[in-house]
Amino acid sequence: TTQSSDIDTEELIPLSAKRFVNVRTFKGRIMIDIREYYVNDDGENRPGKKGISLSVDQWEKLKEAMETIDERIHNS
Amino acid sequence: TTQSSDIDTEELIPLSAKRFVNVRTFKGRIMIDIREYYVNDDGENRPGKKGISLSVDQWEKLKEAMETIDERIHNS
Repeated sequence: TTQSSDIDTEELIPLSAKRFVNVRTFKGRIMIDIREYYVNDDGENRPGKKGISLSVDQWEKLKEAMETIDERIHNS
Repeated sequence: TTQSSDIDTEELIPLSAKRFVNVRTFKGRIMIDIREYYVNDDGENRPGKKGISLSVDQWEKLKEAMETIDERIHNS
């Protein structure tokens, strides 16, 4: 039998070679996971420790903060 | 003498009670740190392990992915 994975690699949205965003459902809650991945011994992309899973509410806050963040970047 | 901190609490952008975005410079590179904080014994907000520091390039990728992420959320 095949084993289903909680990661569909095709759905990972890349930010860099090793960092991806994954929108997933955990215990009925939608999470936006921004995370670094590593390749395991079977050559599969696996989520690592470095990252954070945002709730939809936190994601909305991040979007609202986008202009402020861009201003901070340009003033750095 | 006073000791300067790498965290200016006033500059933290809140996503929730314990989660913040901080735009900081580390070794001359601007980083956008999305992270969970904890209060230490001195009552100071300190960055915890849970989080990820994005480069400006990764931040730009995240902004470009925003509509795709929103579509995934609405289809979840």
